[in-house]
Amino acid sequence: MFVHNKRLQYTVRVSEPNPGLANLMLEQFGGPQGELAAAMRYFTQAVSEDDPGRKDMLFDIATEELSHLEVIGHIVAMLNKGCKGELAEAVDSEAELYRKLHGAGNDSHVTQVLYGGGTPLVNSAGVPWTAAYIDTIGEPTADLRSNIAAEARAKIVYERLINLTEDAGVKDALGFLMTREIAHQQSFEKALYSMSPNFPPGKMPGDPRFTNVYFNMSQGEGDARGPWNAEENFEFVTGADAQKSVDGDGDAAVTLTETEQGVLEQLVVRTASDPESDPLTGAELGMGVDEGEVERQRQ
Amino acid sequence: MFVHNKRLQYTVRVSEPNPGLANLMLEQFGGPQGELAAAMRYFTQAVSEDDPGRKDMLFDIATEELSHLEVIGHIVAMLNKGCKGELAEAVDSEAELYRKLHGAGNDSHVTQVLYGGGTPLVNSAGVPWTAAYIDTIGEPTADLRSNIAAEARAKIVYERLINLTEDAGVKDALGFLMTREIAHQQSFEKALYSMSPNFPPGKMPGDPRFTNVYFNMSQGEGDARGPWNAEENFEFVTGADAQKSVDGDGDAAVTLTETEQGVLEQLVVRTASDPESDPLTGAELGMGVDEGEVERQRQ
Amino acid sequence: MFVHNKRLQYTVRVSEPNPGLANLMLEQFGGPQGELAAAMRYFTQAVSEDDPGRKDMLFDIATEELSHLEVIGHIVAMLNKGCKGELAEAVDSEAELYRKLHGAGNDSHVTQVLYGGGTPLVNSAGVPWTAAYIDTIGEPTADLRSNIAAEARAKIVYERLINLTEDAGVKDALGFLMTREIAHQQSFEKALYSMSPNFPPGKMPGDPRFTNVYFNMSQGEGDARGPWNAEENFEFVTGADAQKSVDGDGDAAVTLTETEQGVLEQLVVRTASDPESDPLTGAELGMGVDEGEVERQRQ
Amino acid sequence: MFVHNKRLQYTVRVSEPNPGLANLMLEQFGGPQGELAAAMRYFTQAVSEDDPGRKDMLFDIATEELSHLEVIGHIVAMLNKGCKGELAEAVDSEAELYRKLHGAGNDSHVTQVLYGGGTPLVNSAGVPWTAAYIDTIGEPTADLRSNIAAEARAKIVYERLINLTEDAGVKDALGFLMTREIAHQQSFEKALYSMSPNFPPGKMPGDPRFTNVYFNMSQGEGDARGPWNAEENFEFVTGADAQKSVDGDGDAAVTLTETEQGVLEQLVVRTASDPESDPLTGAELGMGVDEGEVERQRQ
Amino acid sequence: MFVHNKRLQYTVRVSEPNPGLANLMLEQFGGPQGELAAAMRYFTQAVSEDDPGRKDMLFDIATEELSHLEVIGHIVAMLNKGCKGELAEAVDSEAELYRKLHGAGNDSHVTQVLYGGGTPLVNSAGVPWTAAYIDTIGEPTADLRSNIAAEARAKIVYERLINLTEDAGVKDALGFLMTREIAHQQSFEKALYSMSPNFPPGKMPGDPRFTNVYFNMSQGEGDARGPWNAEENFEFVTGADAQKSVDGDGDAAVTLTETEQGVLEQLVVRTASDPESDPLTGAELGMGVDEGEVERQRQ
Amino acid sequence: MFVHNKRLQYTVRVSEPNPGLANLMLEQFGGPQGELAAAMRYFTQAVSEDDPGRKDMLFDIATEELSHLEVIGHIVAMLNKGCKGELAEAVDSEAELYRKLHGAGNDSHVTQVLYGGGTPLVNSAGVPWTAAYIDTIGEPTADLRSNIAAEARAKIVYERLINLTEDAGVKDALGFLMTREIAHQQSFEKALYSMSPNFPPGKMPGDPRFTNVYFNMSQGEGDARGPWNAEENFEFVTGADAQKSVDGDGDAAVTLTETEQGVLEQLVVRTASDPESDPLTGAELGMGVDEGEVERQRQ
Repeated sequence: MFVHNKRLQYTVRVSEPNPGLANLMLEQFGGPQGELAAAMRYFTQAVSEDDPGRKDMLFDIATEELSHLEVIGHIVAMLNKGCKGELAEAVDSEAELYRKLHGAGNDSHVTQVLYGGGTPLVNSAGVPWTAAYIDTIGEPTADLRSNIAAEARAKIVYERLINLTEDAGVKDALGFLMTREIAHQQSFEKALYSMSPNFPPGKMPGDPRFTNVYFNMSQGEGDARGPWNAEENFEFVTGADAQKSVDGDGDAAVTLTETEQGVLEQLVVRTASDPESDPLTGAELGMGVDEGEVERQRQ
Repeated sequence: MFVHNKRLQYTVRVSEPNPGLANLMLEQFGGPQGELAAAMRYFTQAVSEDDPGRKDMLFDIATEELSHLEVIGHIVAMLNKGCKGELAEAVDSEAELYRKLHGAGNDSHVTQVLYGGGTPLVNSAGVPWTAAYIDTIGEPTADLRSNIAAEARAKIVYERLINLTEDAGVKDALGFLMTREIAHQQSFEKALYSMSPNFPPGKMPGDPRFTNVYFNMSQGEGDARGPWNAEENFEFVTGADAQKSVDGDGDAAVTLTETEQGVLEQLVVRTASDPESDPLTGAELGMGVDEGEVERQRQ
Repeated sequence: MFVHNKRLQYTVRVSEPNPGLANLMLEQFGGPQGELAAAMRYFTQAVSEDDPGRKDMLFDIATEELSHLEVIGHIVAMLNKGCKGELAEAVDSEAELYRKLHGAGNDSHVTQVLYGGGTPLVNSAGVPWTAAYIDTIGEPTADLRSNIAAEARAKIVYERLINLTEDAGVKDALGFLMTREIAHQQSFEKALYSMSPNFPPGKMPGDPRFTNVYFNMSQGEGDARGPWNAEENFEFVTGADAQKSVDGDGDAAVTLTETEQGVLEQLVVRTASDPESDPLTGAELGMGVDEGEVERQRQ
Repeated sequence: MFVHNKRLQYTVRVSEPNPGLANLMLEQFGGPQGELAAAMRYFTQAVSEDDPGRKDMLFDIATEELSHLEVIGHIVAMLNKGCKGELAEAVDSEAELYRKLHGAGNDSHVTQVLYGGGTPLVNSAGVPWTAAYIDTIGEPTADLRSNIAAEARAKIVYERLINLTEDAGVKDALGFLMTREIAHQQSFEKALYSMSPNFPPGKMPGDPRFTNVYFNMSQGEGDARGPWNAEENFEFVTGADAQKSVDGDGDAAVTLTETEQGVLEQLVVRTASDPESDPLTGAELGMGVDEGEVERQRQ
Repeated sequence: MFVHNKRLQYTVRVSEPNPGLANLMLEQFGGPQGELAAAMRYFTQAVSEDDPGRKDMLFDIATEELSHLEVIGHIVAMLNKGCKGELAEAVDSEAELYRKLHGAGNDSHVTQVLYGGGTPLVNSAGVPWTAAYIDTIGEPTADLRSNIAAEARAKIVYERLINLTEDAGVKDALGFLMTREIAHQQSFEKALYSMSPNFPPGKMPGDPRFTNVYFNMSQGEGDARGPWNAEENFEFVTGADAQKSVDGDGDAAVTLTETEQGVLEQLVVRTASDPESDPLTGAELGMGVDEGEVERQRQ
Repeated sequence: MFVHNKRLQYTVRVSEPNPGLANLMLEQFGGPQGELAAAMRYFTQAVSEDDPGRKDMLFDIATEELSHLEVIGHIVAMLNKGCKGELAEAVDSEAELYRKLHGAGNDSHVTQVLYGGGTPLVNSAGVPWTAAYIDTIGEPTADLRSNIAAEARAKIVYERLINLTEDAGVKDALGFLMTREIAHQQSFEKALYSMSPNFPPGKMPGDPRFTNVYFNMSQGEGDARGPWNAEENFEFVTGADAQKSVDGDGDAAVTLTETEQGVLEQLVVRTASDPESDPLTGAELGMGVDEGEVERQRQ
């Protein structure tokens, strides 16, 4: 069960309203790398987890991410607060309000007109949050790696936002949020490596013929070597001939019943294209091919 | 530039048509962990990458994933081939066709009616593929971790599909595809660790006050310890009092101009709720509260 | 700040695993009328609310909805628990696992293959949750009505799920969740009517010429009267002539500069269709119109 | 059956082209609170409704909303008309056209480049309309409340657009559209309350132990009382101890067969995390932990 | 302005309820090739069209498609009518209701539980309709071709549904709807070819060096010739060497300022991968590489 | 199988970075008419095609579109290259970086903050690419028409982008890409008309009573005639009376069992609206109707 305390986990002191900046901050509220995505990622993993240690950790961090969602939400709300009343109360002239929305040169008009200067679960382009952002699949050796990567991404987006922000209070709160992603990543790393073995993920081993093969499928100037395809670790296979149909003839086939085969042939015949034809086409009609040409082509 | 060769990278030998199984296979064709997601993830990273080694590797693997998209697509096409003609040619009775679509107990009806037994870019529930599945953010220490996690997830979904499939040819091709995810994960791991340092991701260090703190925010029976929150590595903070407003008063505040403040107050007054009232409500009207009650309540 | 306690708000006692039923329950986990939608609806309103009473109420109910999300999530997890291991461990034969996934006659295959029997934020069709489900616009006289309606909808979906469920423990927990929607609806109703006036919503009055007009735009047998169009309350306007262009000529017009007008005319001329022509078309080519016909038509 | 008359329901007189304003107007054309959402909401309800009075009303209002979609569409088209030709005919220099698209400081570039200055069904951020905006569930006591709320929201978005618009003709037509939302809301209210009882929605009563309980789940400074949680109407429950596991032990449980239990245990053991370990992690490798450290940590 | 008449354009006589069939029919109600897509496609084109003939035609056909949406909607409603009451009234046992939902072996459970047996704007997989299905771009030589194609697609989906349906009344109404797509396609073809020239679409000619070139980029067994790449019409270019960098060196380049160049180099250096390294990776840790190996690898 | 060569198909020479222009170019990278949509459209058709000629052609063109995706991606990458490092390295002041993001007056802030100046698969509004853009249905007479239309649309969007671009290198590469759409359209036209007959699409003929009927459903000033509704080709039906219920009574009906009928009646009675009532409504409460009024109304 969740309980809420009205104190934020971290204090938010915004120096002045700035709806353009508020709009950028939405990236971490309702964006793909934002705090709702983080909270829901860990919360849903926690609910179905059977390992007691991971389950507890996932609830701990999910709860903290919800608390971060609240912090970033308040940053957005404070940055919008000055102008929230302006559109609702319409104390300015229409021209003035219109200019304010557009002068900023950003997407804050969506936030203002559609959401009233509130805190919607959209990213900075106004795209609604979707659970398609969450890549949990219910297997801890994969999900923990996904969590590690998610924390790394969130850290970077915070870093970018900090680089864009002059407001000392916003910078300070963002710094806290960014730092926590580093801490969480470390916990997920510890959890992953406390499972042994954890690679390859899952239960089924790979086919040893292909587990350490590197196919050099992009060729030409710029071809490079490094530990990711070095001979110490990988069999390096280059050239289309060695790469195609590595196991047989590279065909696709299926065994059909006679009836299925017959129906399929009927379909193929009915929809066959005639490679010998040179048909007059709609494009040619559209180019204004003249009648003689039409006649000639149709012979 | 891409070139295509009609031989598949791996041979597809399906023993008999099975549209229900075809539908499951879509998970790796147009699903979130599938081959299009993989190919586009690496391709888009390759295009903007400036490190020559990583750029080459990303093009290599992107190209292979496109080739895998082709393999899994042909598995789907072969599994659907027997019935592809049946709906188009309508040689069976309507009842028979209807039964075939529903008898399978799965979502293959979507694939049949809407896509004609083809190979649409949807997952096994019929949800269209979306680039929201791709979590690339343009920073290699994050993106490589995302790639590592993506390979782990794809490996697992292949493992599940193999566990569900009796068809030896399908199993064999899926085994190849699954194995290649293991190989790719190893390349991405090598690439990540050949960047040094790569943690924390990005350029900006964390705030040392919070980098190694673990907030135990989920409490009660089941609370657990492990390396993810062990004292060797983390300062363990428990209890709401120690967790809230870790830096100040936990308030959110913004400095408004006098005008902004005035407009906001006007808005607040206009939309104030009266905590002392006990208004008659629509719900009460809807319950059929009688008139005496209405009168009483409104006094 | 949020805190989590490992006790659920309501006990979940499932009598036996049932992945088909689990799949239906997802409707209230990651579906449009489900608990995540409710929690995020109220949470985001709370963050931007300036009225102290409503703000507190919104945080109270948002927190409870998060706790409900946890309850319904555990119902799903328990219903899936029996089979969660089966696919991962693959102790059954492939045929048996395939049969289990499809025998249920529902979409649980998505949950099993893609999400490993977990608790994904999708609805019972497998469609990922989207913030497009949340209709908050940042104006309390509208948002409270939206909340009232949302609670009514959630109540109904729970009622339907209860009607489908034989499992006494699931029924019991669903009954609790359904009941709480009734309680929340009552709170939102009280909050709405404690704002006075609250209709029309917002600040701007309607145009009195049209505020109480009812346009009878669907005509024919079945035309009906009732309080929603009764003469006591509405001016009843019927017939297309009285309904169209109620204020003028019903045209759309804009004043263009001479230059704009000129460019537009150039566009119109360039893309004009010739009403006097009888062109040969692609469809006619496609019907196999013979050459004589082609010639005739093109004269 | 629908019939169309080329006169608009309300005249549209735009004083001059303004693609930036056109872009804002899209909010009520293809946005979540716009006229397509309204028309489709009522139309789909009408089609499945069995009560003759409501069915007629829903068709009446659906038809009017379609007519409003046409009015707002023409506002957008007129605002775009001046520039529609400019990009197609390219009479300006490239630099001039580029400047026009960007000078406005809004998202009109999407409308221009992708939609040619037309009237796409997107909102002002360019997000395509989705039926996920429609919350109809097929139960009139819920759907009528949803309709009431939808009309309230649409009224507000029109109010905001009017506040932003200087163009007298646009203001006038928006005023008509806004007013009609007020009229529709009144009809839906009459329809709702002509059903008696209509609360609680649906057929199943709530559990009396929880129907009038208010859980005070957000605590701390700012805690407030009002009619929504007043003792006259609600039992006020505060404190996590009184709120958690209100009916039992707050656990989640399911009865598994012995086999299911065995497989699950196998899964748990295979994927167990070792709480006693202190594993070396990828993050530590990434920080450049030196070899001695590696060795030490791995002991 | 739209007006509605309660008579359908075509009579719907369903012989008996069938929620599974209802679910399939949704494909043409809220699916990508369905009637809402058609109606909105033509309606939005009509609103922005300046050619009087096309504008009238588009309004004519848009209005008819809305009337078709109503017909297919009533087919769905009739097929669902028998069971609509069953879940709401719950006169059957829970087990019986559950069996009815799942016995059908299709996705009707979504329609029943979430939409109450109504007529939602989703396809047969339950995916909500999206304006992303509409490909209008505001240029008639393109949009008319899109309309022609859309009619062809809708015709085919109706054909498939007819092939699946035994119910004579449903077949009859679907036959009408299918036929009308043929009629509409013919009108759009006439409208396209009454514009002369209409190919290439738009105003700008192609580069003559590449307008009639065919690049044979897929090679190997199965390579084929036909009128689409015949020498009469196309210059046939084969082999990667002749296809790549057809104009220069095939590089991508941009001129940077010295400062930009400097910052970029700083980024490249900071994030460089070391091709000479052979780093220990997380995957290797995860495989349980022993300490000696760790040490060795890190030397 | 695909192979990649590091030379682009066409050289990209960008004269200077321009993130605003980069953002517009995304329309053809991850937008609905862009190269990914084209490549995937043809690739998925190729995989399921059984006609050898069309299959080869579809693979040829799909492969070329992938190569175009690479070209347009490199245009985006070059236009972003100058600023890619600026946010990551943060060498400018925060105010300067903020100004750069907003000064452009476009959505490039999304690309910068979320995607780090990379090449994401989104359109110029930041909306992620979705397979809902692909309208393939698995029937060649429809799919080829869809392909023809898709090429026409892509040609136009390139034309618009060329009209907006001053950069000679960008213009040149766009010109190549635009031209290739013309070439592809011609190939698809040849392929369509080499199938004979190809109209009506599919196998089932239309109902001759309605195949050549034109319903004039939009009436009033502006009604027009042209080849699309001319008497030579169409029976022109005008007036609602002649258009409605063209075959019978225009009703919708279904035969229910007695039990179904009984349950439905029970539902109708339970949810009936009382047309004779004049209920007090929530809106009236909200307007502050006084008690006397309440009493009066409820009598």
